[in-house]
Amino acid sequence: MRFATLKDGSLDGRLVVVSPDGQRAVAVPQLASSLLEALQRWDSVHTALQAVSDRLATGREPEAFAFDPRACAAPLPRSPQWLDGSAFLNHGRLMDQAFNKPPPPLVDSVPLMYQGASDDFLGPHDDVPMPAEADGIDFEGEFGVVTGAVPMGVSPADALGCVRLVLQLNDWSLRALGPHEMKTGFGFLQAKPSTAFAPLAVTPDELGDAWRDGRVHLRLHVQWNGERFGEPDGGEMSFHFGQLIAHAARTRRLTAGCIVGSGTVSNQARTAGSACIAERRVIEKIDLGDSRTAFMHFGDGVRMQARHADGRDGPFGVIEQRVVSAA
Amino acid sequence: MRFATLKDGSLDGRLVVVSPDGQRAVAVPQLASSLLEALQRWDSVHTALQAVSDRLATGREPEAFAFDPRACAAPLPRSPQWLDGSAFLNHGRLMDQAFNKPPPPLVDSVPLMYQGASDDFLGPHDDVPMPAEADGIDFEGEFGVVTGAVPMGVSPADALGCVRLVLQLNDWSLRALGPHEMKTGFGFLQAKPSTAFAPLAVTPDELGDAWRDGRVHLRLHVQWNGERFGEPDGGEMSFHFGQLIAHAARTRRLTAGCIVGSGTVSNQARTAGSACIAERRVIEKIDLGDSRTAFMHFGDGVRMQARHADGRDGPFGVIEQRVVSAA
Repeated sequence: MRFATLKDGSLDGRLVVVSPDGQRAVAVPQLASSLLEALQRWDSVHTALQAVSDRLATGREPEAFAFDPRACAAPLPRSPQWLDGSAFLNHGRLMDQAFNKPPPPLVDSVPLMYQGASDDFLGPHDDVPMPAEADGIDFEGEFGVVTGAVPMGVSPADALGCVRLVLQLNDWSLRALGPHEMKTGFGFLQAKPSTAFAPLAVTPDELGDAWRDGRVHLRLHVQWNGERFGEPDGGEMSFHFGQLIAHAARTRRLTAGCIVGSGTVSNQARTAGSACIAERRVIEKIDLGDSRTAFMHFGDGVRMQARHADGRDGPFGVIEQRVVSAA
Repeated sequence: MRFATLKDGSLDGRLVVVSPDGQRAVAVPQLASSLLEALQRWDSVHTALQAVSDRLATGREPEAFAFDPRACAAPLPRSPQWLDGSAFLNHGRLMDQAFNKPPPPLVDSVPLMYQGASDDFLGPHDDVPMPAEADGIDFEGEFGVVTGAVPMGVSPADALGCVRLVLQLNDWSLRALGPHEMKTGFGFLQAKPSTAFAPLAVTPDELGDAWRDGRVHLRLHVQWNGERFGEPDGGEMSFHFGQLIAHAARTRRLTAGCIVGSGTVSNQARTAGSACIAERRVIEKIDLGDSRTAFMHFGDGVRMQARHADGRDGPFGVIEQRVVSAA
């Protein structure tokens, strides 16, 4: 199943089921008004939602209308929690190497994860208001999952069974603010403004073989101002999503609708490029002696789309955003 | 006005207005079903809510019933964001001195603040499920505020005008997990299980002169297993709540219902005692050479109540909780 949320002025937006080809959609107020509500009542609604999806797939849904990704909010415009890992260790190793820092303690065995704001997500085509270019504006292309209710102390294997939906997202970051917040030990806050999401949240089966080992085996194609920036493969994630969810639930239960992110997608092969400017800059520093690529300017655009290895589009649709001055 | 939320099986609970003496309450479904909804529509409902409060105060509210704090959830059982400062610099200085650490960068001018989980708060009399005593179970007595909608880039002075309600809370902490999470730079996550709240959320005017300079000038009386632990004064906060809100809103807008906390209340005078075990332990280390007080055991209880300097009860009611094994 593929779900999207149309903007309707409400905090949770209007849930629609989208056809497998992404062309048609239908609202399902008789089942759930919002995706959050559907997740909260998943066991009692998912069979009926699947039936709607099946009817859409075969053109038998009389109320269907043309699906417009530009009318979409994030699939979950707000969610109970947003927990973002840094599960591609290649990315962290590059950062540490460039800045000549020792790796964080236990980095190979305990996932890095920060708690983000989850009340005000951006839609796939929303402008991104930022206070100042001097803050070091950067994108971060990621995959993520939405959980059902997760009990405290869940095992990584059981946690994988709590995955309800898979997402593609852009974790907007302000690189000039991050180092101070890391040094205090209190973690990211100002360095992480509102996160943006691709229009479609999909059940894992929509990925076919690309969902395996608790990872999204798709390439995340990133363009900056129309130029290719990278297409790293999500399959290289060092911790799988079950491990990330179990880490988050070690001392708390998670409520239905929590989002857990992978961290910026990052591959060992330099040819894959990167999914964030910070990583390109540290690669330049390592390979060329200094960082040459500047961070973003107001007016810059970024486009992200996941694709299968054979070039077919992934199921999430496109993130295409422009950075604007918040002033 | 004093508000509480009765448990009714829903995620946001049932809003009641409580009389100034804390004895009587009345539900206001015609105005707002939940406190979150009231905050989201504050401008259109607060006059009518005040009228209900006035009728309660004078015994003219026919639907009023006896108010039972034991039936209460947190005033906001879930909120859009939970941002906790560490605004009593005395506390941080003691921690740094005991562990012989340099102060965090810019500690006197930039508030320390972490993003907490906000989807699953505990009520004032809820048991506190924890996975293991070895995690270093600790309470943290704090004050907090609930904001209306706050624009990105708000000034500290304007931010104070966004304060809608004042709270008393217990930021449960796991001290064995905090140091690792601080060292990674990603901040607290497992170290901060669900936070608990006193039953009453009150408008600032309910504090009278005790709400001034953006601070809560009340003593937070803390008892552990029935023994006095401390009664530090909230007025010694080094940053006021307007500064904390402005820090949180530097690169994001806040939506109505966000909670901003003070961090553990802490006073320079040793005679005030402490509002968390970690602080008593570092004072023991500094004054006596080693930490003698152990963290909490399953079955331990903590009680917190704010009082005016003259001994009158503060307006928030009592937090009284017991730690239990989550297993």
